[in-house]
Order: sequence, then structure tokens, then C-alpha cells
Amino acid sequence: MNSSTSLKMRLPALVLVFEVVMLILFALFVTYDDNANARLQNNETNPMENSLYRDYPYFADVQVMIFVGFGCLLAFFRFYGFSGMVFNFLTATFAIQWAIVIQGFFQFYYDGKIHLGVINLLNAEFACAVVLISFGAVIGKTSPVQLLVMALLEIPIFSVTEWAVLKYIRITDSGGSILIHLFACYFGLGVTFVLYRPSLKKGHSNEITSYQSDILSVMGTLFLWVFWPSFNSALTLKGDDQHRAVLHTFIGLSSSTITAFALSAVFNKKGKLTMADIQNVTLAGGVTVGASVDMMISPVAAYALGIMGCTACYFGYRYLTPFLAQRLRIQDQCGIHNLHGLTGLISSTAGICAILLATEETYGPSMYQIFTHRAPPVGDPKLLELQKLIPGLKPGLGRTAQEQALYQVAAIFATIAASAVGGLLTGMVLKLRFMASPSDKDCFDDELFFDVPSDFDRGHQALISYDEKLKMSSMDTKVASKNLSE
Amino acid sequence: MNSSTSLKMRLPALVLVFEVVMLILFALFVTYDDNANARLQNNETNPMENSLYRDYPYFADVQVMIFVGFGCLLAFFRFYGFSGMVFNFLTATFAIQWAIVIQGFFQFYYDGKIHLGVINLLNAEFACAVVLISFGAVIGKTSPVQLLVMALLEIPIFSVTEWAVLKYIRITDSGGSILIHLFACYFGLGVTFVLYRPSLKKGHSNEITSYQSDILSVMGTLFLWVFWPSFNSALTLKGDDQHRAVLHTFIGLSSSTITAFALSAVFNKKGKLTMADIQNVTLAGGVTVGASVDMMISPVAAYALGIMGCTACYFGYRYLTPFLAQRLRIQDQCGIHNLHGLTGLISSTAGICAILLATEETYGPSMYQIFTHRAPPVGDPKLLELQKLIPGLKPGLGRTAQEQALYQVAAIFATIAASAVGGLLTGMVLKLRFMASPSDKDCFDDELFFDVPSDFDRGHQALISYDEKLKMSSMDTKVASKNLSE
Amino acid sequence: MNSSTSLKMRLPALVLVFEVVMLILFALFVTYDDNANARLQNNETNPMENSLYRDYPYFADVQVMIFVGFGCLLAFFRFYGFSGMVFNFLTATFAIQWAIVIQGFFQFYYDGKIHLGVINLLNAEFACAVVLISFGAVIGKTSPVQLLVMALLEIPIFSVTEWAVLKYIRITDSGGSILIHLFACYFGLGVTFVLYRPSLKKGHSNEITSYQSDILSVMGTLFLWVFWPSFNSALTLKGDDQHRAVLHTFIGLSSSTITAFALSAVFNKKGKLTMADIQNVTLAGGVTVGASVDMMISPVAAYALGIMGCTACYFGYRYLTPFLAQRLRIQDQCGIHNLHGLTGLISSTAGICAILLATEETYGPSMYQIFTHRAPPVGDPKLLELQKLIPGLKPGLGRTAQEQALYQVAAIFATIAASAVGGLLTGMVLKLRFMASPSDKDCFDDELFFDVPSDFDRGHQALISYDEKLKMSSMDTKVASKNLSE
Repeated sequence: MNSSTSLKMRLPALVLVFEVVMLILFALFVTYDDNANARLQNNETNPMENSLYRDYPYFADVQVMIFVGFGCLLAFFRFYGFSGMVFNFLTATFAIQWAIVIQGFFQFYYDGKIHLGVINLLNAEFACAVVLISFGAVIGKTSPVQLLVMALLEIPIFSVTEWAVLKYIRITDSGGSILIHLFACYFGLGVTFVLYRPSLKKGHSNEITSYQSDILSVMGTLFLWVFWPSFNSALTLKGDDQHRAVLHTFIGLSSSTITAFALSAVFNKKGKLTMADIQNVTLAGGVTVGASVDMMISPVAAYALGIMGCTACYFGYRYLTPFLAQRLRIQDQCGIHNLHGLTGLISSTAGICAILLATEETYGPSMYQIFTHRAPPVGDPKLLELQKLIPGLKPGLGRTAQEQALYQVAAIFATIAASAVGGLLTGMVLKLRFMASPSDKDCFDDELFFDVPSDFDRGHQALISYDEKLKMSSMDTKVASKNLSE
Repeated sequence: MNSSTSLKMRLPALVLVFEVVMLILFALFVTYDDNANARLQNNETNPMENSLYRDYPYFADVQVMIFVGFGCLLAFFRFYGFSGMVFNFLTATFAIQWAIVIQGFFQFYYDGKIHLGVINLLNAEFACAVVLISFGAVIGKTSPVQLLVMALLEIPIFSVTEWAVLKYIRITDSGGSILIHLFACYFGLGVTFVLYRPSLKKGHSNEITSYQSDILSVMGTLFLWVFWPSFNSALTLKGDDQHRAVLHTFIGLSSSTITAFALSAVFNKKGKLTMADIQNVTLAGGVTVGASVDMMISPVAAYALGIMGCTACYFGYRYLTPFLAQRLRIQDQCGIHNLHGLTGLISSTAGICAILLATEETYGPSMYQIFTHRAPPVGDPKLLELQKLIPGLKPGLGRTAQEQALYQVAAIFATIAASAVGGLLTGMVLKLRFMASPSDKDCFDDELFFDVPSDFDRGHQALISYDEKLKMSSMDTKVASKNLSE
Repeated sequence: MNSSTSLKMRLPALVLVFEVVMLILFALFVTYDDNANARLQNNETNPMENSLYRDYPYFADVQVMIFVGFGCLLAFFRFYGFSGMVFNFLTATFAIQWAIVIQGFFQFYYDGKIHLGVINLLNAEFACAVVLISFGAVIGKTSPVQLLVMALLEIPIFSVTEWAVLKYIRITDSGGSILIHLFACYFGLGVTFVLYRPSLKKGHSNEITSYQSDILSVMGTLFLWVFWPSFNSALTLKGDDQHRAVLHTFIGLSSSTITAFALSAVFNKKGKLTMADIQNVTLAGGVTVGASVDMMISPVAAYALGIMGCTACYFGYRYLTPFLAQRLRIQDQCGIHNLHGLTGLISSTAGICAILLATEETYGPSMYQIFTHRAPPVGDPKLLELQKLIPGLKPGLGRTAQEQALYQVAAIFATIAASAVGGLLTGMVLKLRFMASPSDKDCFDDELFFDVPSDFDRGHQALISYDEKLKMSSMDTKVASKNLSE
């Protein structure tokens, strides 16, 4: 055990300081949302008016995804199950708290206070998902201290980017393909680029799975799969938009899943299935439908997107991840560039196509509700006309489809740039001395940060000790024989 | 490894053809449900009007049952955990897609299009449950190619049967005891009858569990148990009917569970509990209350049904399954005939009793909402009277309770006949050469279709190699001794 | 195997008698809630009027907590995973049924019948949680017969206490800190005090975890964590109260979780994390916010309560549990006194402070809805005034804040006294001869009550047999050598 990786002082000190800061910020700035405030006597129980009744079911589903789904999925290493599952728990909890405050200042701040409701928690869980995706790039090679510091830096960088893109570039991205998946991916790649470990270029002997860890990881996949429609539809417009988001996500995941099985078998030397494909590639469709998830793309398009995303993701794992690791010094542990980067790019492109193809003929006047920035601006007579059809329609910017598409492109590049730079800077911070970074040898090993039970790696040790004892035993025999022969 | 079981070409080819067909069918026939269509500007968020808000919570629960619940439950073999969980994932995804289209033509087709909403997905999950139950009969002895072909054939046969029974025989079966459980059971038995393997008559050495696989399987049971009330109530009338369905299912499962523990202990030689009973027999109550789940049977009847179903199921496992295997060449791997067949028959019988006992005194005029076929036909003056009490009551067929009961009986026989014949025919198709069917020796073995991690069956191998090495070591000794003695 | 622990007759007899009693009670007394009764033709689907639509989503979440969450959490022992998970399943099912009837008589009884709806099931699950918490004190040292008898006695004692406290002392306790957590804790301690086993004073060699059991137990923790907001908010007033309950629970759990990690690291000799802390101490915040969960305590107070509860819980595990076991003969197996007792006391104290600090300025007139007993009594002119602001406000007792606080104190002492005495008496019953209590040696061992698979404890046996064989082998060698030397 290396004293430089002891958590004895580092982790508690970090948590303590963080908690003091949080207590101060909460005390000064956090109050209740109107529908959580007794004083206003709303007692609002209409699901569309009170975010508790509107958003809590989706929030609960996303909770399962974040804590159980990610937790199990990341426990896929044989000797790193505790760490995968438990660091996910720690990092997620930490990131959500931090996001409540940071996003609060950007999105829910008025009258000098952050107004807290279930909707903030839901947004914070999305920010947390960003951190957990990035975590996938560096899992096994980072200490919990590094993970918390990463969350500490990534949440504000994400929140600023999100705020700037939504406020100034003004894009449509219901499933979060750009702001969640692309951001998380390139941030993670930036971090892992800086944390490059040359000695692990040919892998680490601990980078294997076990029978149980593979099963656990598939369980994580299943929980993510099952609730992904809730994830993609949680923040859409209510009504038919949310309905389409659920349908598209389900269809995309379905076609993606069977494609993953087919690809796994066809490219395996013995024609067998590979668990890593089933754990990861099956989920590609959920990301790929993201950017256009609430648009009228038609069900067949969602089906096709699932197949395309899955295929890109599969070949990414096969060819791109090794290439990045060998040539570009980017060790992407879980292959987040395949599951979130490539699919995010396909999704964003599909979103742009959907925007370019959107017409009033297909959407009716509610086109201006979905593509809010295409609604006519204040003063435009068309706005009044539309408001007769859709009472309460908000004025927009009067953008054409082409203009909106260009803004989407701008948002993609801006997000990738911000996240990559943010990731590189964060990586540099994580390299600082007191971060308890594990040595190359100790990577992917639960024993470094956990008191492990006595059967940890017992099989391994048993075999070793068996061989050693056997050697000794036959040595005894030889000695005995030798003695006898004398 | 046998080249005839390689998935390299077979699985991808099947998936590819299927996906092309699906893309064509989706492109030609699948469009959005009215409440998922932006153009109609409904923006409907009333839970009773938009199937997203009405059905999605139940859909999400059923998703967990299908993917996590079944997945874990079917992973109960020691060397077949990957296959149990992952083939369930593959088969379920495949079956749901296919059911969306096939059921779509029967149930959601008008104006030349299948109209897609969450309600279709929910129906498709029920069709998928049918396939997964049948899967239970042949688990361990089938390749994924066979499973997909089974789904490919079972879904249409099921959909036709469902449509014909509901349209022509017109029955009441909210919990799906007849159309889901009986159909799935006899279809599965038909398939496994054809796939009979004489050499496995005395079992296979791999047909054992491990400590971890038993625990995993109980987790599956728990997920099924917890969400079964959602399963049974998802498609009932809303309001008090759905409420009763939840209550009855919960009560039936409860009494069934404690009965299963009692039976497990009393018939065990050493007075201990058997995990297989806890994994399966506890769930019998959920099926048994099915056919009468939304009727006014009174809570005590649900309690009694749980006990009866559980008892039948338990003795089925004990006596009937061995009998079927030995005498009738029906190797029912998971004992679906006990958990779905016997209980389904009891449930159907109970449903018939409930129909015979239903009176206006108990149900009030809403009897004609629950037993729709008993409502007076168009033109009957009683219809107008009733419509004053229940606005919007649909005209029925004016059947008496006895008539309806006879139709239920007819439906039971028709369903069993259709499913058994369908299963036999499907079994014959599955016996065709290129289906990658595992050899008898390779049954119940993950290694056949998966790249397995190095600790797969390590214990087993370690013991073998230990014994072998020990033998060698003592041989060395003997040789040494022999040499010395010379 | 000890015939005195055979379940062959005892368990089935107990279940049989119980089922007969239940059938009689159900037949005589249990009917449907108005909104589950077809005859009344309500067809009510408004979520606030029909407990199906209002409470079922929360009920489903609590179901997952009870069956999957507790089940996995209690499976933390290496050789007691079957028992932990399966006895939890049995006990929970049994307790819920029993609570439906017993609580039914106290809370849902009128016109000579218990009226059954989803709200009763939800209440029964809470009563069941009480039993499962108490179970934590005696896990590993009790037979399933003892557990069922404990449930049989604890449910009525709890229901009477709950009814008396709510009816006569009239307290505010939405999260159940007093009535659920304190009651369950001191009842469990009472039982375990009587069941004291001197020979286990220094622990049992089976009281260890395995790598897989630790992971399973963390999964249980995660399911409890994720759905705890539903647990704490299920029975609050709807509208802003329920909203706050969700927010406070989430915040309290969050701050509790990161505190648990910090404490775990700082007090570990090697600066590592301890899985037991992560499995238990992280959850302390959920209990600590309980008593004031729906009050206007401000988000920062929830954050602080999470930290305080977690700290108390951690030091409880470290110092108090050993002390109780060594000095007071209280062997609290899972440390429920830390996770439910200490936190419950802190929570109750915080609740009292919140009551003392509640003013109309903060709450507006809805203060009298939350603190119902502070509403003016019938005839008070202030009542009429308030009823203009809040139509339907019920008259109260006109208590002042101080009075209400004193009643809360009284309720705390009354609950602790009732539960401790009830626990002691129950413990005495459990000591009776025919309860199949395991011998000291057989504690914490699945093999006592289960048919275990062949790999149960294989590693252990393998090592033993290896050593033995090795000994024999070298003995052979020695014999051989000896023979030779002759």
C-alpha cells in the first residue's frame, strides 16, 4: 500500500471544505420553488403545473439509471467492482449537489435566490450524467479524489457551456446529444489525454472481467436500456412531443440492440458473442435518436438511426479506440468516444436534417412550439395569426430552417471545443501531486482504496499458492528421494 | 467448438433480413398515433386521453419485468447465466419489434397505417412475454437463431389467435390468463415436444445452479413479484377496475408466496427450503388471479386463488413435470406448465365462475362495462336506460352469464389448440439443419455461444487440474521411489 | 443437521393456521374501498381522489425498496445470502398481509368492514418496513419460524402504538421518524436483548462478507437510496408538502452520503474505504430528515441534518454498537440502533425545533393544514376566518407550538417504551422451544435452512480438502520413502 494514495486526509478534507461551501451557498441562496412553498398556498397538484407531479416519475427513472444502471455497468472489471460501483455512487452524489447550485445560478435564479424544485434535481441529474460519462474514459486509473475534483470542475464548465449555447446560439437538443453526450465525451477524452500512461499502452493484467462482473454489467445495461425512454423524454415539451420522444427512443434502442448482436457475432473469430458488445453497443441507439427525439422524423427514421448509431459505435470499438490509444495517446477506457461521441455526431447530423426538413405541412402550426427559434419575432403579424391557433405561443427569432441548421452546427463545434479544452485543463489539475493518483501497477485494483474481503481474488491466490505448495511438496519428495538414494 | 453452432453467418443474416423487412414495413405502414402527432395540435396531457400519460408508468414497470425480471430469473443455471440473461434480452427486443408491426396490423390499423403510441408498445410487451414464457420450456437446448425463429413464428400465431378470440369468441380476460399464459405454455410445450432429446432424459450434468446464480434468479423473481400488479392491471378498464386488479394481484401473490414456503419445507426430506420453489412457485398467485383480476370477486377470493394456484403449481413441479418428461417426451425445462399452464387453467375456471356469479346487484350497472358482451345490443330499450346511468356505454351482444361462460370455455380450448399446433409446427422448423442447434453435450453451456472470461467454471477446472496435478505429483513420487528401489 | 431446526412441520403449520385465520378475517371483514367498488360507479380517475392514481406510483417504489432494496442489503453475509434475501421476502410478505388486516381494523374500518384500497397496501408496507428493520437486529441468529412469529407480534403492537399515538397524543411525523424508525429500532433491540448469545460475544467465524455479497449489498443500498424520497413523501399532504418532502429527502441523503465516505476514510487505519460504511451509513440522511420532512425547514437545514445524522450513525457503529454488545448484552447485528435509533432521535429533535419555529409568516395560513392540531377548534372565530382562506380546513385542537412540541416529546417516550417492552416480550416468545432457533455454531449459515448448491463455500472446502490431500500426499511420500528405506 502506497501512502501517497491513502485517502485518510485528502478525501475528508475535500469533502469537508465542499460541505462548508455548500452549507453557505444553500443558506444564502437556496429557497423553495413556488410549488414547494407552503406560504403561497398553491397546493398545486395538477401534473402540468407542479414539477413534482410532472417530473418526479421521470426523475425516479433517471435516478435508477444513474445510481443502479451506471453503477452496475461500470463494475465490469474483475478486480474493480467495488470501485466501479462505489465511485460511481460517490461521484454522482457529489456532482448532483454541485449541479443543483451551479445550474441553479444559471437557470433557476431570480429575486436573489435559487428556487428549488424537482425540475432542478432532474436537470442536476443530467449534469451528473455528463460527469459519469466522462468518468468512463478514466475509470481504473483515477483516485476518488481525482474524480471529485473532476466533478468539481466539469460541472461549472458544463453549466456555462450549456447556458451559453442555449442562451446565445439557441439550439434544439431535447435528448441532449450535443450538450450531454458530445460534451461529456470530448471532456473525458481531454482528461484522459493528459492522464496518459505510457506503461499501460499494452494494457494491464487487471483489465479483465469475471463471470460475475460480466453479468452485473449486463444488469446495468438492462436498467439503462429500460429507462432510457424516460431519460430522453424527460425535458421535452409535454403532450405529443414527449410521446414521440418515448417512441423514438424505444425504437432506436430496439434496432440498435439486435444490430449489436449481429455485428458481435459476425466479427468474432469463432462466431460467438462478446459480452462487452452487449454491455455497450446495444445502447448506441438511445444516443443516436437524441437530437431529433421529439421531432416528426417518422418511426422508420428512428429505426434507421438505431442501426446506424450501433454500427458506428461497433466499428469505433473495433478500430478507432485502439487507434486513439496507440497513435493519439488517448486511452479511452470504456470507449465513450464510440458510445457517446460517434453516436452523438450522427445524432446531431440527423437533428440538423430533421430541422432542414421540418415544414408546417408536417408539424402544423405547432412547428413553432418545437422549433421555438423559428417562431416569428414580436411585432410580426404572423405571430398574431399563429397565436390564434396556439394560444400562448411565445415569440421567437424568426429563423429559417437553414439558419437554425447553421446555428446547430455552430453549437456542435462550440461544445466540442469548450469540452475538449475544459477536459485538458481539468486533466492538468488532476495531475497535481496530492491527488492520490494510483501507480500504474495499482490500476484497476480494488485493494488500493478498499478494505477487501478475504476472498478477493481468492481464486488467483489459491492457484498461486497451490502451485507453490505443489512445488514445495515435490521438492520435499525429491529431497526425500535424494536422501534415500544417498 | 462445433462449426455447426457458429453464429458467424446465421445470426447476422437473420437479423439483416429482418431489419430490411422492418425498415420497409415501418416506412410503408407505421405512422404516429393521434396523440403523438404534432400536426393535430392536441398537446393532450390528460392522463386518460393520451396513452403516454395513461400507460407509460405501467409500460415502464413491465419493461423492468421483461428485461430485468425475466433476464435474472432465467440466469439460474450455473454455467448458463450469460445465455439466460442475454438471450432473453435479444429475444425480447426482437419479439417486441415484430409484435409492434404484426399486432399493429390487427389492432391499430386504419386509414392504411399502423398508428403508433405507447399503448402499442405496451401490447407488444405482452406479446413478448408470451415468447419469453415459451422460451422457458426450451432454455439451454436452443441456439439464439432458434429463439429468434421461434419469436418470428410465435408472434404472428399469437396475434392471429388473440385477434380471432377477441373478435369472434369475444371473451373477458384482463390479466391474460387464457391468451397470454395458456397460449405461451402450450406453445412452448409443443416446441419442446418436437425438440425432445432422448439422451437428456436423465438430465445433464450442467443442469445445476451455483450460489450466485440462485441469488440472481431470486432477484429476478423479486422484480417480477414487485411489478406484477402493474402487469395485470395495465390493460384493464380505468377507475375501479384497475384498482381491483392491483389489489387482487397483490393479495394473490402474497398468499401464494407464503404457501410456497410452507410447501417447500414440508415436502423437503430434511425440512429445508429449496431455492427453485422460491424462484418459481411464489409467483403462481399472479397468474391465478389473472382471468378474474378486475371483477368483483371479493378480496378473500383473490387470497384463496393464490393458495390454490400455488399448490397446483408446486405439485406440478413435483409430479407432473417428471411425468411429462419421462412418459410424454415433453422436456419442460423451467416447468412453465406448472407456473403458467396449471395456474392458467385454474384462473380461467375461476374467471368462468366469476362470470356466472356476476349480478347487477354486485356490480351495479357498470356490470355492462366490465362484461361488455353482456350489454344489451343496439335497439334494445334497456340499452337506452343503461346509457342514462352510464353515458357512453357501448352496445354489446346481450349475452347471458351462461352464454358468456360457454364462450370462455370455447376460447380456452381454441387457444390451447391453436397454441399447441403452432408450437408443434414451430418446433419442426426449429429442427431444420441450419439453426445452430447445440449438441446434447453442449447444452446449458455458455461457452458454446459466448467468449467467456478466464474464471468461467474455474472452480471446476481448478479441481480437475488439482486432482490431475496431484496424480502426476504422486506418480512422480512413485516413479522416484521406483527408481530408488531399483 | 439438527432435527430441532427442521422446518418440516413448524413452518407449514404456522403458515397453514395463519392462512386459515386470514381467510376467515378476509371473508368476514374485508371489502373494497369506494374507489375500487364497481357498484358505486365512481370510475374515478382523478389522481387526487382515487388512491390508485394518487398512491400507486409511490407504492411501487416502496415495493422495490422493501423486496429488492432490503433483500439485497440484508444479503451481505458471505454464507448467509440466501437467508438474508429470502427470509426478507418471506417476512415482508407475511407482515404486509397481517398489517392489511390489523391496521385495517384501526384505520380503515367502518360500517363493519375494512375497506381495502391501494392506500391500505401502502400503509401496510410501512408497517412491514418496521418489521424488517427490527429483523436487522437479529439476522443470522433466528429461524424463519421465529421471524414470522416476530412479525405476528410486532405488527399488532406497532399498530396499537401507532393508533394510540396518532389518536391520543396527536403528533406530526410524516417521514415516520418516531413511529417507524424509533419503534422498529427499540423493538428490535428488545428482541435481541432477550435472544442474547454469550458464546457469540467475540463474533462468529461466519460473520464475514465476500466480494460478491458486498457488491450485492451495495446494490440494495442503491435501490433504497434511489427511492427513499418516495418513501418519505408517500404519506404527506399533497401539493407543496409532498414536494418539499421529496426535496428534503434527496438533499439529506446526498449530504449524508458524501459525509459517510469522508468518515469512512478518515477513521480507517490505512485510509481506505470500508464497504459496511457505504452500505449503511450513507442512508442515515434519509432517516434524519424524516420528522420534519414536509415542513418549511429550508433546504440548508435538510443538508445539515444529513451531515449530522450521518456523523451520529458512523460513530454509533464505531463505538456504541460494540459497547451495547459488550456491556449491555445487546447484540445488534446490523447496527439498527445507529441507522434508525440515533438518527431517529436526531430527527425527532429536529422535528420539535421545526414545530417550535413554525410561524404563520413562514407558512402562511396553510400552517394549520400541516400542523393540523394547531388549527383553531370548532367554534373559534379564527377558524372561520382561516376557512375563508383555505376552504375545507378542518378544525383542530388549538394547540400552541410549545404544546405541540411537548406532545411530540411525549410521543417519543411513549413509542420507545411501548416498542422496547413489546420487543422484550416478543423476544421471550421467540425463546420458546419449538421455534427452531439455530444453535450458536449454525448461525449465519445458509446450509441450516436451505438446500445449497454444490459450490456453496466451495473455495473454503477446496482449500481444506487441498491441504488435507496434500498432507495425505506427503504422508504417502513419507510412507513410500519409509518403505524404501527399510
